[in-house]
Amino acid sequence: MEKIKQLQQDFADFMTQTSFDGQPTELYQPIAYTILQKGKRMRPMLCLLGNDLFCGDESEALWPALAVETFHNFTLIHDDIMDKAPIRRGMETVYQKWNSDIAILAGDAMFAMAFQFALKPKRGAELATQLGKVAREICEGQQMDLNFETCGNVTIDEYLEMIRLKTAVLLATALQIGATVAGAEETDIQHLYDFGIAMGMSFQLQDDILDLYSDVAVFGKRHGGDIADNKKTYLYLKALELADEKDRQRLVRLFSIRMDHDEEEKIEEVEQIYNRLHVKEAVEQVIAKYDQRAFEALAAINLPEDRKTHLRNYAESLMGRKK
Amino acid sequence: MEKIKQLQQDFADFMTQTSFDGQPTELYQPIAYTILQKGKRMRPMLCLLGNDLFCGDESEALWPALAVETFHNFTLIHDDIMDKAPIRRGMETVYQKWNSDIAILAGDAMFAMAFQFALKPKRGAELATQLGKVAREICEGQQMDLNFETCGNVTIDEYLEMIRLKTAVLLATALQIGATVAGAEETDIQHLYDFGIAMGMSFQLQDDILDLYSDVAVFGKRHGGDIADNKKTYLYLKALELADEKDRQRLVRLFSIRMDHDEEEKIEEVEQIYNRLHVKEAVEQVIAKYDQRAFEALAAINLPEDRKTHLRNYAESLMGRKK
Repeated sequence: MEKIKQLQQDFADFMTQTSFDGQPTELYQPIAYTILQKGKRMRPMLCLLGNDLFCGDESEALWPALAVETFHNFTLIHDDIMDKAPIRRGMETVYQKWNSDIAILAGDAMFAMAFQFALKPKRGAELATQLGKVAREICEGQQMDLNFETCGNVTIDEYLEMIRLKTAVLLATALQIGATVAGAEETDIQHLYDFGIAMGMSFQLQDDILDLYSDVAVFGKRHGGDIADNKKTYLYLKALELADEKDRQRLVRLFSIRMDHDEEEKIEEVEQIYNRLHVKEAVEQVIAKYDQRAFEALAAINLPEDRKTHLRNYAESLMGRKK
Repeated sequence: MEKIKQLQQDFADFMTQTSFDGQPTELYQPIAYTILQKGKRMRPMLCLLGNDLFCGDESEALWPALAVETFHNFTLIHDDIMDKAPIRRGMETVYQKWNSDIAILAGDAMFAMAFQFALKPKRGAELATQLGKVAREICEGQQMDLNFETCGNVTIDEYLEMIRLKTAVLLATALQIGATVAGAEETDIQHLYDFGIAMGMSFQLQDDILDLYSDVAVFGKRHGGDIADNKKTYLYLKALELADEKDRQRLVRLFSIRMDHDEEEKIEEVEQIYNRLHVKEAVEQVIAKYDQRAFEALAAINLPEDRKTHLRNYAESLMGRKK
């Protein structure tokens, strides 16, 4: 993973050189606060790896990589207002630390900055077009997610479409943008995009599992948080599908109440139902299907297999992640 | 004004042909609701006029004109959340009719759509770059405006910078985008942009005056609304500058309280102070200065004067407006 470390370092250096200051400071402080937080930098890494795959010039891909990261951070700031989330990456959210007006505006300004960054290199119009498309899709995904909170019967297909729009398309677009900067062929870019979608689906479903089945110390999120929040994840929807009438009614009931105390009891009961129904294994089967689809798409890219090593390794680390 | 009417009709037809539908409907309904409202369509008109000025192809300018209008409507939706404004253009605001989550998301999606529209014609990268720049400036202006609400001593220069960022730059950019689509020379585009800034300043200062000195039936806003809301407009700041110590203290006091009743009394008292200090005349002098600056910039554009007739007429109708 030498190459990955080098790209991570290059991106970190690039971020350090870039100024996120501006006037009025009330607007730019929360922007710098958010973008300079320690994160996995998954999306810029995918952008740089997509560019590296087709032997693109790394210095050309740094601005679009920053565009994707800035865009992603804008969505987090606005999502946190809607989700009333007080903490992210172990830090107070912008909405919590300042207020929702500032969070709306700082997010809007970051959205604009993302386009400004995407338009800097050559092929800027293509990159910005890809960014515009993914931005709309992510809004659609977030709206579906909001709808699910109050919707009684979410289907598994609707859930998969929601996570495709909310998570997978941005990972795929990050790769696509990197490959576009490198001047890759249209068909190869499409395969890479398909790879990104399948990888993103796998990643998000893994995330659903990790909520419940992970070492909290490693994953860094509270155990069963999705259950406590009544989030209709794939685990829940699959459980409904597999459950008999009694379990089904019990699950629906448990996911319609909000516990102020006895939260642990609720999580434990849901976990027992899930285990009895072998829900985890069912989700792992679906994940395996996406993993396979991802690597088929990667194989279809018209390049020698050894050129794909860095990206394959990085994707495997994301898809088989413990955190 | 035959030309103006024709362009207005062309833009209206173009809007009718464009679909603002999409899935999920919870996201796209408020978008269609907002963009299809009857408005002055000032910004798309400036875009089309900027293009017409340099004999550009009108069909090329319609998408960027829609981009500017969509962008403007996005800013209104987000501003209305921050200002807690229940009504706009005589209709419930999105935040009021739906909720603030939907208003945030619908605004974000419109922001993305604006870039998608701007990137459609040739020179799309330039147009999107101009849109990205103005988007950031407008966020800065809105943040300054929010700051002013709680800031005790706003200077006139700060106020002018705020309205430049919040209002004038978008009018100037609409013209600039139109001229860019038409392939105008860089120096001419700069003169046109300068014209737009001066016109925008004049327009906004006129707006400050109309709040108090206008026929409510024609202007369509409540008499003295800025005073009731304690808005530190140019009138107020100029009055502070011209007032003796007693009037100054009284104004500061009046603008620090929020009346639930006796609002009319407060407005009347402020109006009397303004009249005594000849504030309206002082603002009109500043407006005249901007008007002059605008027409100097227009004169500097390297085109026969009769080509500028449509734009000059339209600008005059905006700047000398009674509503």
